[in-house]
Amino acid sequence: MSADQRRRGAASQGSGPWPRSRGPAAVAVANAWLYNAALVRHDLPTPGFSFELLATLGHARAGVLHTPRGDIPTPVFMPVGTAGTVKAMTADELRAGPLDARIILGNTYHLYLRPGLDVIGAAGGLHRFAAWDRPILTDSGGFQVFSLAAINEIDDDGVTFRSHIDGSQHRLTPEVSMHIQAVLGSDIAMCFDQCPPGDAAAEVHELALARTTAWAARCLAAPRAPGQALFGIIQGGTDTERRTRHAAEITRLAFDGYALGGLAVGESLDDTYRILGEIAHTLPAERPRYLMGVGTPRDLERGIAAGIDMFDCVMPTRNARNGYLFTQAGRVNIPNAQHRMDLGPVDPECPCSTCRTYSRAYLRHLYLAKEILYSRLATLHNLTFYARHVRRLREQILGDGLLA
Amino acid sequence: MSADQRRRGAASQGSGPWPRSRGPAAVAVANAWLYNAALVRHDLPTPGFSFELLATLGHARAGVLHTPRGDIPTPVFMPVGTAGTVKAMTADELRAGPLDARIILGNTYHLYLRPGLDVIGAAGGLHRFAAWDRPILTDSGGFQVFSLAAINEIDDDGVTFRSHIDGSQHRLTPEVSMHIQAVLGSDIAMCFDQCPPGDAAAEVHELALARTTAWAARCLAAPRAPGQALFGIIQGGTDTERRTRHAAEITRLAFDGYALGGLAVGESLDDTYRILGEIAHTLPAERPRYLMGVGTPRDLERGIAAGIDMFDCVMPTRNARNGYLFTQAGRVNIPNAQHRMDLGPVDPECPCSTCRTYSRAYLRHLYLAKEILYSRLATLHNLTFYARHVRRLREQILGDGLLA
Repeated sequence: MSADQRRRGAASQGSGPWPRSRGPAAVAVANAWLYNAALVRHDLPTPGFSFELLATLGHARAGVLHTPRGDIPTPVFMPVGTAGTVKAMTADELRAGPLDARIILGNTYHLYLRPGLDVIGAAGGLHRFAAWDRPILTDSGGFQVFSLAAINEIDDDGVTFRSHIDGSQHRLTPEVSMHIQAVLGSDIAMCFDQCPPGDAAAEVHELALARTTAWAARCLAAPRAPGQALFGIIQGGTDTERRTRHAAEITRLAFDGYALGGLAVGESLDDTYRILGEIAHTLPAERPRYLMGVGTPRDLERGIAAGIDMFDCVMPTRNARNGYLFTQAGRVNIPNAQHRMDLGPVDPECPCSTCRTYSRAYLRHLYLAKEILYSRLATLHNLTFYARHVRRLREQILGDGLLA
Repeated sequence: MSADQRRRGAASQGSGPWPRSRGPAAVAVANAWLYNAALVRHDLPTPGFSFELLATLGHARAGVLHTPRGDIPTPVFMPVGTAGTVKAMTADELRAGPLDARIILGNTYHLYLRPGLDVIGAAGGLHRFAAWDRPILTDSGGFQVFSLAAINEIDDDGVTFRSHIDGSQHRLTPEVSMHIQAVLGSDIAMCFDQCPPGDAAAEVHELALARTTAWAARCLAAPRAPGQALFGIIQGGTDTERRTRHAAEITRLAFDGYALGGLAVGESLDDTYRILGEIAHTLPAERPRYLMGVGTPRDLERGIAAGIDMFDCVMPTRNARNGYLFTQAGRVNIPNAQHRMDLGPVDPECPCSTCRTYSRAYLRHLYLAKEILYSRLATLHNLTFYARHVRRLREQILGDGLLA
């Protein structure tokens, strides 16, 4: 039984979050349709951006986010390039099939502190600095300020903090974050938000929500780089009423897309999935929906089933460096002694060059010898696994879903 | 003035170690000859290996070492792949032009200790384990035992030592070294030798020489992998009489090539160059000559001028990781603040993908952020610099030299 048969079998048996399969006939119709039908394409507020919905399967959606720097089939997983590099990867490797990354992430906080805006500005932006010609999404810096830096002061205007690198003092406001993201020249900027800890008191949550809404309006009013879209962020923790209320506040503003922030930050998986299921499908259908910082392959499947279009997470890249490799048959802990003499590939079903070229035994050896090549090969594999995982789910939506 | 004109100009002015240029007419003749003449090809003792001399310029030689796994134009620089990987590089990158590595090194000591012979044996040898299909030269393990391990005992039969990784006790003899190299399946094995410190007393040197000669004969008598050549090693420190005497002893044995060991191990550069000049050209002309563990670009030029055909050194790879990049205009210390905003390539004359794609400012940022990508890009550049440096000298010998 092929992987494809297994997947369809599972779907038609009703296991997992997916509706019942519509069967092979529907797939053929859907495929034929792909080449013929008029498409449902929604212009987004920022010129040059549009979101095309191709099919839905329950709340799940398959589409294309069109940007001035290229098309992004959705659902999509975005590799994280914290410091202007997806760790261990070249731009060429990220672009090449079967990985074929269509968009990567950059971290505003990290890039602002190092190499600094003057350097990236002189280079003409992050794309030219890092030799990456496809879309980039930048976060606002908010999450890192609240999780990495030493906070000196938070007020209604912004945050004063000390760098985790050299202790130097900086201040981030909605306008400063937008200015940094304009210099970086990302294709999609994110609103500066306040992320309280999940277990914060109700009044802390309420203050953070009020600020996040006010800051969202200020971000929307701030200047942007040419051809730069802006997404709003919905906070509210695991409280349904608070999430729903904040979603209403943020979606009243004309953002190009809407993100769920503050999930997978320590709450239970049940709470994550519950909020996802309650909120995601209620966000505007004609705009891309982005679940920030999530997650495992299963989280992605749940997120897609709930109606999410975009994901990012350090998990595939960080886990790779730490010895954890994703496969169709489950996670492989490469330092495990069972792989010492294993001459087979990490995942026999994987078309990445790591799996086509090198054995588990070789990867284990490189890992134990702390060789740089290990991180390269492992990262390429895990990112390919994530890309293929999301593409398979997309094909399932296109094949089994209702056409838009 | 092109780099080529500068080089020829320098040669014709008699600067550096090169004889006077024979001028453009001779170059034209030489180039025509390359496509027409019968070649001087010497079969080496091991079937499948031959050494072809194309031209000489003073003592310098240009040739081809033919092996069952492919041809190696000489002079050649061999990147060092200590633990079954040229650090930070994939096999594909090493093979691709303009680097085009024709042979790499593997370290017997390191591979024997980790991953161990059973693993590499199960994989069918180092080539298959590391997915490298071109020639590999393995050292004997002697140099690492004497420089890295804790020596317990040296006697006429071999060396007992403790691993630098886990303290486990092992014994290396000429026969054990040859067995390990046979399991690794390298294309060129090296004799197990004893390397005394450069400042050792005369009687220590004499004992080491006697053992190295006796061990060379035992290595020659030991079983080898099919299609595996064996090179002898000449020791003797910086003493001309001792070097000459040992060269006579070792070249009496029918090795496929002859190596100078125990140079660039702490003696003065004057002494290195003096011994090179005295000994290299006296070694058998019809066999490849290998200068072990050397050196800087200038050392390679001096070695080639003295009649050396093969080199290896960790310098391009290790220096790369430590921030030192080689260029036509001299060494670049990439963390230096002067590169902070420098949007130009490391070396404008370099065709490597690092120089064609990324700026000094980006490399400096990656270096300071301790990003893995830095080591990849820097290593690729430095290895390309070394490969092109040696290829340029080879072309000079072919262009200006006397034809064989």
